[in-house]
Parts: sequence; C-alpha cells; structure tokens
Amino acid sequence: MIAAKVIDSIWSTRKVDRLVGIKFMLVEVLGGTDAGRLLIAADLINAGIGERVIVSQGSAARQIFDQDNVPIDAVIIGIIDAECTF
Amino acid sequence: MIAAKVIDSIWSTRKVDRLVGIKFMLVEVLGGTDAGRLLIAADLINAGIGERVIVSQGSAARQIFDQDNVPIDAVIIGIIDAECTF
Amino acid sequence: MIAAKVIDSIWSTRKVDRLVGIKFMLVEVLGGTDAGRLLIAADLINAGIGERVIVSQGSAARQIFDQDNVPIDAVIIGIIDAECTF
Amino acid sequence: MIAAKVIDSIWSTRKVDRLVGIKFMLVEVLGGTDAGRLLIAADLINAGIGERVIVSQGSAARQIFDQDNVPIDAVIIGIIDAECTF
Amino acid sequence: MIAAKVIDSIWSTRKVDRLVGIKFMLVEVLGGTDAGRLLIAADLINAGIGERVIVSQGSAARQIFDQDNVPIDAVIIGIIDAECTF
Repeated sequence: MIAAKVIDSIWSTRKVDRLVGIKFMLVEVLGGTDAGRLLIAADLINAGIGERVIVSQGSAARQIFDQDNVPIDAVIIGIIDAECTF
Repeated sequence: MIAAKVIDSIWSTRKVDRLVGIKFMLVEVLGGTDAGRLLIAADLINAGIGERVIVSQGSAARQIFDQDNVPIDAVIIGIIDAECTF
Repeated sequence: MIAAKVIDSIWSTRKVDRLVGIKFMLVEVLGGTDAGRLLIAADLINAGIGERVIVSQGSAARQIFDQDNVPIDAVIIGIIDAECTF
Repeated sequence: MIAAKVIDSIWSTRKVDRLVGIKFMLVEVLGGTDAGRLLIAADLINAGIGERVIVSQGSAARQIFDQDNVPIDAVIIGIIDAECTF
Repeated sequence: MIAAKVIDSIWSTRKVDRLVGIKFMLVEVLGGTDAGRLLIAADLINAGIGERVIVSQGSAARQIFDQDNVPIDAVIIGIIDAECTF
C-alpha cells in the first residue's frame, strides 16, 4: 500500500456503468522518492480532503467490493490516525 | 487509477485475434511526478482526443469485457467532467 | 520482491472492516535506483523497526491470508538475516 | 499497454520448461517520460526488429496462451501501423 | 519480463512458512532507464551470481510453483545465453 493525502474529488458523469455510485478521490503520494505522484482511488469510507490515507492498488482493490467485476485498481482502505507521525 | 489526457488513436492491423474491434487510444498521464508518461488504453466509451479520462490498469481493466481472456491491461473507465478542476 | 527497511508503525482506526487486526508497517526500499521509496506493508511475522525485510507486492501478498479477499497489496514475507550483506 | 520498439531477440537455453518454444524479444518503451525503459516480451505474432508494437503487461499477458500457467508477464499484442504517427 | 544480473544470495531465516526451501537471489535490472533497480527474485533454475537472467514479475511468478498460494511476486524464468548481446 502507499500513504497518500486526499487532494480533491474527481467527477465523471460519462463512465462505465458498473462505476455508478462509486466515489473517486484524487490522492497524492506522501513521502519517499514517489512523493507527489497522483492517483485516483475509489473511496468507500468517506475520507475527507486533506486526510492522510492508506491506498491499496492492483487486484487487491477489487476485494472490498461485493462483486468482483468492477474495473477499479486503487481504493482507500484506511485513514491514517492524526497522531501517527512519520 | 490515473488521470490522463487522450492524445491520439493507435492503429494496429496485425494484432492478436481477440483484439479485433477494440479501439486503442494513446493517453498521457496528467499532473504529479508521473506527468507525461504515455499509455495505450482500450476505449469502450468513445473518449475524444483532448478529453481528460480516468484510466484503470492491471487485471481491473479486463473486468469491463464480457469475456475475461482479452490481453488488455489498461482501459478508459470514465471521462472527467469539464467542470472538475484539479 | 524488494528489500526494505522497517521505518515505523502505521496506525489506522477508521479502516475497512476486513483489515481489523492486521498490523501495518511503513517500509523504505533499500538499495538500487528505487532506494527511498516508501510502502506500507502488512506484517504477520512481527518485524521490528530497523530490521531489513523482504516485501512481496501485488496479488502475491494476499496468498498468506487464510481468506483471499483482504484488500492488501504488500506484505512482509521474511526478515533478512543480519549476516547477509548486500 | 505501452508503445515500444523491438530492439533485439533474447535467447535463453536454460529456462523454465513451460517456456520452451516461446520467442522473446527485447523492446524499448517509446515516447513519454518512460521512454528508454527496456522490457522482455513474449512474441506470438512475429514482430520484426525495428517495428513499433503494443505490449500488454501483468496478468493480461497470460490471456493469449492456451494454458494459463505460463510465467509470462509481458506480451506483444499488436504491431502499430506504419502510417500511425504519434 | 526484465533482463537482470544476479548480484547476491538473500538469506532469511525468519520467514513465512510457505517459503521454506525457496532460494532467493538479489538481481539488478540491466540496461535502459530502469538500470540499477534492485529486486529479490525466487530462483528455481540455479542461476549463478554474475549471470544475466530473465525475471518475470507479478502473478506470473506464481505460475511456476506447484501450489498457487506462495507469496512470491518475482521469479527467475531463464538464463540469457552468453552469446546473446544486447
């Protein structure tokens, strides 16, 4: 997984049917030599803009959906506690 | 997923049989430290050149095809709304 | 896999249900041109901060869980012996 | 997928049994910030040295083999038409 | 796949049970803009230090094991012939 910061919401009206109702957030990788890389991640736990999150990528991302056939390759799986400094 | 801009169409006459009828677009990653990376993505939602799109990669990309055995690793899953600034 | 050093623990109280009880560690890639890249990896073998570990990524990471549906894309699979210099 | 140029053949006499008979080509990523990255891709459509090809990576690459258990993570899926400029 | 050079053995006494008996090698990516990246790959074909090898990554790597549940994401699948210059 990667640590990232939620930057913004991403809106897409014209999209693949199976994605209707899924919220997308733009996140930015935090720390290390990958800092500043941008990803779009699905958000099922209502992360807020500015929060630091854990993002899981690849086939792992599909595991949190009830059906396995969503074309999602990145998902926010947790919000990093504010007290956690790194 | 990544945010990308559609740059061009990619034409391939000699290709694997299962790809016949699938449209390929050249897209360029937008923003962040990966900006400028080029990908070829399958397009099933008729994205136009110049539009900003959401691209899903890896095994997630195959989920939008009826049959699971297409050798596709990137697909355009949505068009980012014009009003969405980031 | 990659060789990495365990840097810190990552705490996340608000997270996807299936992750409850899984320990997360922040690790930093060691050596080579990827040195300094940060990852968050699940830890089931109690690696200590400062230890050098082997991290497996992608769908391989889910193989060490009893159930296959955890949204985990990186896991510590071994601790590199202290005598092993590279 | 990525756009790449076929650079050379790769010969490997000592290899995993399941790879016997599969042709490997060295390809170089074309364009964008990843230009110049080298990959080895399986070739089932007889791409020639110097041709521009579409390479699919990850689990997608295994989809073009009759059996799913080949340890191949990159495959040439099409040859880009000469008239296609990008 | 990538072309890489075998640099060293990696020893890990404390590791996930399913990895017992699997040999790990440190390899360095050869050529191109990724040259110098380090990976740890499982070795089932007895590659020697200094040899140039083909490394397969991702879910493809698990295909060469009898059981599919090993948490391995990179494996040496062939040794590049000494006569093969690139």
